[in-house]
Amino acid sequence: MSAVSRFPVPDVESLPDDLRAAIEEVEAKTGFIPNAYLHLAHRPAEWRAFFAYYAAVMDGDEGLTKAERELIVVATSAVNDCTYCVVAHGALARLQSKNPIVADQVAVDWRKADLTPRERAIVGFAVKLAGTPADVDDDDLARLRASGLSEDEIWQIGAITSFFAMSNRLAHFTATPPNPEFHLMGRVPREMYEQLVKTDPPAR
Amino acid sequence: MSAVSRFPVPDVESLPDDLRAAIEEVEAKTGFIPNAYLHLAHRPAEWRAFFAYYAAVMDGDEGLTKAERELIVVATSAVNDCTYCVVAHGALARLQSKNPIVADQVAVDWRKADLTPRERAIVGFAVKLAGTPADVDDDDLARLRASGLSEDEIWQIGAITSFFAMSNRLAHFTATPPNPEFHLMGRVPREMYEQLVKTDPPAR
Amino acid sequence: MSAVSRFPVPDVESLPDDLRAAIEEVEAKTGFIPNAYLHLAHRPAEWRAFFAYYAAVMDGDEGLTKAERELIVVATSAVNDCTYCVVAHGALARLQSKNPIVADQVAVDWRKADLTPRERAIVGFAVKLAGTPADVDDDDLARLRASGLSEDEIWQIGAITSFFAMSNRLAHFTATPPNPEFHLMGRVPREMYEQLVKTDPPAR
Amino acid sequence: MSAVSRFPVPDVESLPDDLRAAIEEVEAKTGFIPNAYLHLAHRPAEWRAFFAYYAAVMDGDEGLTKAERELIVVATSAVNDCTYCVVAHGALARLQSKNPIVADQVAVDWRKADLTPRERAIVGFAVKLAGTPADVDDDDLARLRASGLSEDEIWQIGAITSFFAMSNRLAHFTATPPNPEFHLMGRVPREMYEQLVKTDPPAR
Amino acid sequence: MSAVSRFPVPDVESLPDDLRAAIEEVEAKTGFIPNAYLHLAHRPAEWRAFFAYYAAVMDGDEGLTKAERELIVVATSAVNDCTYCVVAHGALARLQSKNPIVADQVAVDWRKADLTPRERAIVGFAVKLAGTPADVDDDDLARLRASGLSEDEIWQIGAITSFFAMSNRLAHFTATPPNPEFHLMGRVPREMYEQLVKTDPPAR
Amino acid sequence: MSAVSRFPVPDVESLPDDLRAAIEEVEAKTGFIPNAYLHLAHRPAEWRAFFAYYAAVMDGDEGLTKAERELIVVATSAVNDCTYCVVAHGALARLQSKNPIVADQVAVDWRKADLTPRERAIVGFAVKLAGTPADVDDDDLARLRASGLSEDEIWQIGAITSFFAMSNRLAHFTATPPNPEFHLMGRVPREMYEQLVKTDPPAR
Repeated sequence: MSAVSRFPVPDVESLPDDLRAAIEEVEAKTGFIPNAYLHLAHRPAEWRAFFAYYAAVMDGDEGLTKAERELIVVATSAVNDCTYCVVAHGALARLQSKNPIVADQVAVDWRKADLTPRERAIVGFAVKLAGTPADVDDDDLARLRASGLSEDEIWQIGAITSFFAMSNRLAHFTATPPNPEFHLMGRVPREMYEQLVKTDPPAR
Repeated sequence: MSAVSRFPVPDVESLPDDLRAAIEEVEAKTGFIPNAYLHLAHRPAEWRAFFAYYAAVMDGDEGLTKAERELIVVATSAVNDCTYCVVAHGALARLQSKNPIVADQVAVDWRKADLTPRERAIVGFAVKLAGTPADVDDDDLARLRASGLSEDEIWQIGAITSFFAMSNRLAHFTATPPNPEFHLMGRVPREMYEQLVKTDPPAR
Repeated sequence: MSAVSRFPVPDVESLPDDLRAAIEEVEAKTGFIPNAYLHLAHRPAEWRAFFAYYAAVMDGDEGLTKAERELIVVATSAVNDCTYCVVAHGALARLQSKNPIVADQVAVDWRKADLTPRERAIVGFAVKLAGTPADVDDDDLARLRASGLSEDEIWQIGAITSFFAMSNRLAHFTATPPNPEFHLMGRVPREMYEQLVKTDPPAR
Repeated sequence: MSAVSRFPVPDVESLPDDLRAAIEEVEAKTGFIPNAYLHLAHRPAEWRAFFAYYAAVMDGDEGLTKAERELIVVATSAVNDCTYCVVAHGALARLQSKNPIVADQVAVDWRKADLTPRERAIVGFAVKLAGTPADVDDDDLARLRASGLSEDEIWQIGAITSFFAMSNRLAHFTATPPNPEFHLMGRVPREMYEQLVKTDPPAR
Repeated sequence: MSAVSRFPVPDVESLPDDLRAAIEEVEAKTGFIPNAYLHLAHRPAEWRAFFAYYAAVMDGDEGLTKAERELIVVATSAVNDCTYCVVAHGALARLQSKNPIVADQVAVDWRKADLTPRERAIVGFAVKLAGTPADVDDDDLARLRASGLSEDEIWQIGAITSFFAMSNRLAHFTATPPNPEFHLMGRVPREMYEQLVKTDPPAR
Repeated sequence: MSAVSRFPVPDVESLPDDLRAAIEEVEAKTGFIPNAYLHLAHRPAEWRAFFAYYAAVMDGDEGLTKAERELIVVATSAVNDCTYCVVAHGALARLQSKNPIVADQVAVDWRKADLTPRERAIVGFAVKLAGTPADVDDDDLARLRASGLSEDEIWQIGAITSFFAMSNRLAHFTATPPNPEFHLMGRVPREMYEQLVKTDPPAR
């Protein structure tokens, strides 16, 4: 067991070209390789499908804002006590929302978080689908529509929640920790963050 | 809401070529279009990633047998009360295992099902990862190894369980029912099954 | 431990006359002896009381239909993960309702099963009484009345649910499996079923 | 709804002879009619089967002591928050055990009650069968045997627990309260008890 | 481990003057030293803070009646299966309410206890805050106000419930049993009680 | 309802001298008034007892380290989804442990946090006492002793856990949010933190 996974983590150089290119791209953008890019790398077919799915539900400019999507991930990953997803996507939620606090709130108790009514409708539904999926019924969908969400936005809530039900379990299965940098990301101005992680690299 | 999903279900002819080809292929092989092939079809990128992932974890000849994989799906989908997956993969489990009974047993109470020690280790771990993922620990992995499972087989258990945690939630979210044919499939000889579903098409 | 129970299972011939007669009658009618008739047979006084109670709540032509009664058994036994009762009474539900599918649906997720509003009211109440009996309140009873159920029908729901709370625990206590024949019963025309179980006896 | 049940409670004089005789007998012995004898009386067939079963598992001199049987009832009824059974059988447990305290202890937290190792084994198993019956396994049975319990005694634990899983649900369904006298019974010497309930009848 | 706690229980004479005086006072009033006064005595600073808090929320004549406060303790301690608090405060509830029965009812199933609408609102909220505190929301507070409770009374419900969430855990941690006398206290006239505990001291 | 509590929050100047002095002292030391010092201030007797208890279990140099105590608070408050305590004591845990990451880990999944065996024993026990207190038994205590913890240290674990079971419920009852500054505290060097909260005061 490496520090990244209970399962083998290949050297990036040894990976198929498409995986290596994608990993080098995220490293260039983020400053480090998020562990989630590594813990599936020993199974390239699964890696490719995972990130294709991820792109399909988390990228793209239509529908839910990026900040809303990240809050869904934080809230539903908290249902599953998934440290990787709560911490890494907490960082992304801070960056996307420009709000340094709300992800921490949602990670502990979404009910008392400072959410708009729209965000509260989104997160409330996502938490229900994550935790007690068989209880989701037509009334829940009707409430989302009554909150002004479009059919495509509602779909995105369900798709993201479902995808991270998988992702949370993969993280628990592999015991993959969040990279230490995620804990600070989005809490301080970017230059300050970069100076801190450069001069004082966070301990694992 | 159609009979297949709470969300739009496009005509197969209107789908992108790759989706249409895959759907026509499964229809030719199975005799009908499983609803799981339709409920994501209005989101082609998600459809493609879903089935690429499915192929990566459920197909292929190495590691777990096909019957073992289907039992994982039935057992973990029962944790989530997912009718589509329990019924459709119950049928596949019967076909793969040549056992008309064990999937029904696992669907209700895997603990008392007629399983081999190896199957019991597989299913017990899968149910834990599906239901209480944060409780999975190194001792669980050690027990799987002690049951003679290889690292690749252990990986497959985790990957399949995680994938169907997603799939179960998509089915609850869309309220997609199993095709009626699945209820009978694998319970009687193939010719008898085909005669029955042909002359007396099962009601929805 | 025999294949039928963790506790002793007497030979039918050695049983008191009334038990033997009843068991021979059910065997003649069903084609085999349901294991539930055997796992209490070593305690004749309990056997007699059990089947007297069973007759009082499950037989008789007034009130709930036979199909409705069987759906209550399937739904509440699913709450308790009781393989014997889900499978055996699933078969009876198929025979009584002439519907080869709805028992399977109710066994996994009654909320999404194809039920009439009356059936949904019946099953929803039964599941609540089975799983969280202290939460049953006057409002639940009022809702049943508002669904058009008579006082006697409401009583039957409660009586059947309570009886199978006992029966499920006896089956778990004794580890009594359903007879293999139940898995197929009611899924195919009667002659086909009889031919199949005769020429190809299902494995235990 | 009378003070005894949500359902009809017939006058004792109007009941079939066998019910009336049994009820008059218990009234003569106890000094009042326990409500459990009344809430099923409008359904004589069920009443007869219920009390035949009750006699089969709670009466008789072989196997578990009467005090042990009552402790099983108190402990498992506490799992289901059943006021009737906890209070009425708490009284019987005090009378049978000559211990004015242990039933109260078991009613709240059997784990810390002053139980012998044998009683602890009995009650622990009963609570498991009552609350999570599907988890009962061969190891549980082996532990009971290792505690010195005979096969017949083990059977009695399972039979009593199962019977009161039914009885608890009937009491919740009917909302039948314990007779006020049960609260005091067995806590003071018999003459003092009789004087108290005579001169100062407890309020409902 | 003494009979009173898993942790050391000092002789009363060896305690600091203020603790000793308070303990002698309660002994003079009650006739015995309640074990709750002893199990913290080896940590005088904690003892002082505990009983100062206790006095602040349980004593005083404004707001909730003493009987209402004791019912909150019984109901929320039942959520936590705390024998000490259910039994000792059950006795105090009997004394304060002059009702020998209602505390027993609340200890098993507050939903079916003979409570006034005001008591039902109080106890229902307390049980929710005790068991699922994160679910408490503004609507719950609004319902309390609609039941006629003042802001100070609502505060008391929350304060008492929170305090006994601590107290219950201390009792489980120390395994402190209720004094035997509490089981009888408030069930019979005072002279009879005193005669009984004097001539026939209850066994531990 | 102010931003600090559902209940009245007095002006600090209007408070009794001892409360005002203590609050001014913590403000001088921390740079702001933690909301926990305000939400009880309208009930001075409860405020005094609360902070006397707090001092008794959280201050003092003997036994558990300050960092260990804060980890207990974070872990058990996460059991109760208490945002105030997780965030505020997460900050204190970072300051006391000089570790900017471990409190975040413990707040989501203590099982996978980077804890020493001693810390793991402490936190595991605390989480059990917080969540399922009736299940704590002598074996749990024995395991703590086997981990090298002294009786006094074990006591502290139980006392802190019990105290925050109360504190968590008070925070949920009052809906008191953590001060925004806590989210950043202990994540960056002190001067940087002070500059950030000064020039860019965090939004509520």
